[in-house]
Amino acid sequence: MSPAPLPPLAVSLGDPAGIGPEVVAKCWDHRSAFNLPAFLAVGDARSLSAVWDGPIVTIDDPRDADSAFDVGLPIFHIPAGDADIPGQPSVAGAHCSLDALELAVGLARSGSASAVVTGPVSKQQLYSIGFVHPGQTEFVAERCGVASENVAMMLAGPTLRTVPVTTHVPLHEVPRRLNPGLIEARGRATLRGLQRNFGIADPRLAISALNPHAGEGGALGNEEQDLIRPAIDALRAEGWHVMGPLSADTMFHEAARSQYDAALCMYHDQALIPLKALHFEEGVNITLGLPIVRTAPDHGTAFDIAGEDRADPRAMAAAIRMAASCAAHRAAA
Amino acid sequence: MSPAPLPPLAVSLGDPAGIGPEVVAKCWDHRSAFNLPAFLAVGDARSLSAVWDGPIVTIDDPRDADSAFDVGLPIFHIPAGDADIPGQPSVAGAHCSLDALELAVGLARSGSASAVVTGPVSKQQLYSIGFVHPGQTEFVAERCGVASENVAMMLAGPTLRTVPVTTHVPLHEVPRRLNPGLIEARGRATLRGLQRNFGIADPRLAISALNPHAGEGGALGNEEQDLIRPAIDALRAEGWHVMGPLSADTMFHEAARSQYDAALCMYHDQALIPLKALHFEEGVNITLGLPIVRTAPDHGTAFDIAGEDRADPRAMAAAIRMAASCAAHRAAA
Repeated sequence: MSPAPLPPLAVSLGDPAGIGPEVVAKCWDHRSAFNLPAFLAVGDARSLSAVWDGPIVTIDDPRDADSAFDVGLPIFHIPAGDADIPGQPSVAGAHCSLDALELAVGLARSGSASAVVTGPVSKQQLYSIGFVHPGQTEFVAERCGVASENVAMMLAGPTLRTVPVTTHVPLHEVPRRLNPGLIEARGRATLRGLQRNFGIADPRLAISALNPHAGEGGALGNEEQDLIRPAIDALRAEGWHVMGPLSADTMFHEAARSQYDAALCMYHDQALIPLKALHFEEGVNITLGLPIVRTAPDHGTAFDIAGEDRADPRAMAAAIRMAASCAAHRAAA
Repeated sequence: MSPAPLPPLAVSLGDPAGIGPEVVAKCWDHRSAFNLPAFLAVGDARSLSAVWDGPIVTIDDPRDADSAFDVGLPIFHIPAGDADIPGQPSVAGAHCSLDALELAVGLARSGSASAVVTGPVSKQQLYSIGFVHPGQTEFVAERCGVASENVAMMLAGPTLRTVPVTTHVPLHEVPRRLNPGLIEARGRATLRGLQRNFGIADPRLAISALNPHAGEGGALGNEEQDLIRPAIDALRAEGWHVMGPLSADTMFHEAARSQYDAALCMYHDQALIPLKALHFEEGVNITLGLPIVRTAPDHGTAFDIAGEDRADPRAMAAAIRMAASCAAHRAAA
């Protein structure tokens, strides 16, 4: 007997005035070429019809998504009021994007959806309605009851996965935000995430240095010895396969990438520069350390091109495919 | 009448115990496949014969290099005493590498060589004999009578050229080392260097931000407004084509790279991560702002593999080709 099919994926549309609705609609259009499983959109149906003339099927039970998917794009409709003008973000649109996110997470937590894929939101708009989290990642973590230091934001492309230890902080604050406990926690979340979501039994983690040339034995900085090496030692003591601290400039070429399953980086650009240089069109953001699977395309709302039929759906398609793959790995475990 | 042929290139072998001699010898071996012009090695002939059984022609006049090049690898011999054991750096080897560098620079300054290509040296060894410069770049600048802030270290590959504003300093020192004057000086050296060495009449310079998301309007740091934008304004006021400050994570993918001729980056890894992720085997270091052309392969002495016939000569070949190309652009100007 083959295993029971997984529930559908829940895809929140993000800000209704951004490119989220367009890229999700294009994913349904090209569902065969992109090799996508059935998914269920969550958001304002009118934000789809504002930029797309394909068939939309409003449903209110996730179990109807599979059959509806053959006919049109299934959606859990969350009205956004008058907020559906592409490129014109609004307070109503921000509320809609937050409600959609919350509902999609709820569907995954309850088992009605096998994973959540989140469309791009506007943090600026969300802040204006009282949102207090640095981003969707931390919001989802809180809704799942997980402390934010125990989750890890992974950026994944076809030949590279990176995880930043610190994320949206000014560069000058990075050294003081780092500590062995945080590096260790992010490393452990990454390693467990590789096992759980990617089915890698004995994952290999490369940990970057902070300073040029990995600090050159202290001549170019001490964080390698003082902060990073203790975290590496602690993870190795648990039996994990960890290498580093590695000079960040020489750890992302092809031969180097083949030596590890993920790279733990000390700051945002250190993780994002190589990922986007190599895999700009298909970068996926996946949150590790959650009880649910959550992925997202690695791009923003792009209000400047919303409604112009110019948005590239490949990152959203990659996020949907990766969510399905991770959900399958978890179901098989 | 065709123009007079340029003098040969002078290639210093670097530390005799490193991989410099091996990669230079391999360049002569594959001079046709690599499409290399005549060059003249400067260093200890015995460091070549220790790792290579090809023909060596000792000369003492650069004008003999062209005809000798057809017969063997021409070399200005600088004896290194007993320092020719691959993988075993020594004080005598450090002296030899410094003498070779100085002679090669002298040949270029006098016009006897059309450019200098420098093999990898060991800074640790050089420091032990009283060398006080951060690297070969600063030494060459001083020998050419140019202040180090007016030179720029460019890393160049087939589809990307980057220049770091700060280089070998701990990451936590980067923000305080940056100032508008330094950014402007490095930017100007880069722009002039693109004109002079690459023959680009109206070069386009992209200048990176320091903080994630280019500081997000101040929420993630103020260096963009306070330090980088004034430098951009000053360069634009001179008529240069300059864009930025750009979010560093989204400026290195293929479409973005096509918009500029060089990227000015705020720190070492910001410039080196994308360059080496994309072009690890053929990265060339070129010093802009000098009265002479100076290039180098973007790798170190690799003492650990010296003498094992494992060193990859592609970066040295790319450095020699680029030196010849830059010298030709200067001669044609």
